[in-house]
Amino acid sequence: MNLKKYRVEDKLKLSAFKTNETGKGSEAEALERSAARQPKLAAWQERLYAEGKQSLLIVLQARDAGGKDGTVKHVLHGLNPQGVVVTSFKVPTAQELSHDFLWRVHAAAPAAGMIAVFNRSHYEDVLVTRVHGLIDQPEAEARYEQIRAFEALLMGRHTRILKLYLHVSKDEQKERLQARLDDPQKRWKFNPGDLKERELWDDYTRAYQDAISATSSKDAPWYVIPADHKWLRDDLIGQLLLETLDDMNPKFPEPSFDPAAVQIR
Amino acid sequence: MNLKKYRVEDKLKLSAFKTNETGKGSEAEALERSAARQPKLAAWQERLYAEGKQSLLIVLQARDAGGKDGTVKHVLHGLNPQGVVVTSFKVPTAQELSHDFLWRVHAAAPAAGMIAVFNRSHYEDVLVTRVHGLIDQPEAEARYEQIRAFEALLMGRHTRILKLYLHVSKDEQKERLQARLDDPQKRWKFNPGDLKERELWDDYTRAYQDAISATSSKDAPWYVIPADHKWLRDDLIGQLLLETLDDMNPKFPEPSFDPAAVQIR
Repeated sequence: MNLKKYRVEDKLKLSAFKTNETGKGSEAEALERSAARQPKLAAWQERLYAEGKQSLLIVLQARDAGGKDGTVKHVLHGLNPQGVVVTSFKVPTAQELSHDFLWRVHAAAPAAGMIAVFNRSHYEDVLVTRVHGLIDQPEAEARYEQIRAFEALLMGRHTRILKLYLHVSKDEQKERLQARLDDPQKRWKFNPGDLKERELWDDYTRAYQDAISATSSKDAPWYVIPADHKWLRDDLIGQLLLETLDDMNPKFPEPSFDPAAVQIR
Repeated sequence: MNLKKYRVEDKLKLSAFKTNETGKGSEAEALERSAARQPKLAAWQERLYAEGKQSLLIVLQARDAGGKDGTVKHVLHGLNPQGVVVTSFKVPTAQELSHDFLWRVHAAAPAAGMIAVFNRSHYEDVLVTRVHGLIDQPEAEARYEQIRAFEALLMGRHTRILKLYLHVSKDEQKERLQARLDDPQKRWKFNPGDLKERELWDDYTRAYQDAISATSSKDAPWYVIPADHKWLRDDLIGQLLLETLDDMNPKFPEPSFDPAAVQIR
């Protein structure tokens, strides 16, 4: 599949992107592709780690039940946990709030050789804050500028940044929330507060559109991933990850010594 | 297999443990058992994460090329990276050295719901320091006491601690180091400095015996894992992990609300 069509090139209108796309083949084919991709991803990851120069940052944003946790579980579970750090950003603590909004995020940026995943991110600080009126438009614009500068700083140290918005419909969210209520093994993921956010659906749509439009660039693009079908979501993100690592092309480093001259006694 | 025989119950003599054990079945059977165990481990991990009360700390220690990285890769790669944090402790930085030796380790202790893996650990501070004469016997004894108190603190907050010494022979180490030299894809793991440590083999044996004997207890036991055969190592550690999680028995939490009363609009 050509992933370009999911990339946000200019002003984003979410309604222009389908949530329930099914791609060209069947679900079974997508699952097979995803499974076949795991060892390839693991091989690239080992090179990235061995090289120790570049790093990869994956930013996951979505509405509640949009599939952030599922993406981490299904797309990344085959990687070596030694080279992956997942940070789940929650409601900021008192200490975090006593700093600028990028302080806690910066601390979680990937070290050279590593893959970092942000499950929610600094973008919450221009989304939930915006929807609830904690910041106004000028403050949002200032933060967009700060975000662009922050991401440029990371890119300057060879961090590749992929930003993914998992795009689900309002109906699909309802089904998933209901499933969390009905299944005792999923109920721990249900947060009654999510229903209040659901009522603000259109406000979130506007906030996402504004934030993504202002921060998608050639070097740090946003992708709108159709996510009603989990198997397509995982297939697309896996492909994107593989293409990105392939493009980064990390290499096993050359030794700083002459291997032939070493004698092990 | 009964794992008790690998547990350090009193004063440890490493020569009493075999490095090249092969267990009862074949290599193929061990690999099959390990593969079949992955989904079970993942299921327990999800419960641990959902429960959010207990945590698990796995301490990995071994000589160079003893298999620490391989254990992380092969035993833990099927877990959800969102619930696992691997910390590789390197030579301490200047900032770390300006604190007590447990400072950087404490910061990496697992949060409730998480599995933490220490690839090397606070035990380096009673091993490499000891072998190189940076601390003497009284200081080592003082640190053992500090380690016992630190681990008791973690256990008091429901952290289960497993400490694993991966036991390889001097010949096996030689083979593995040579393989790293010979294979361009493995050469990045070869550190010429490892050969100096290899010359101190017997000093390390004494230091390990002393440290492990002083810090193995019923609640935070050390296991000496035969590790010349990677497939047996992975099978034994996988089994130990599964038995430990089974014994911890984390449960999906009860909801704090009445699911039947919730209406999703």
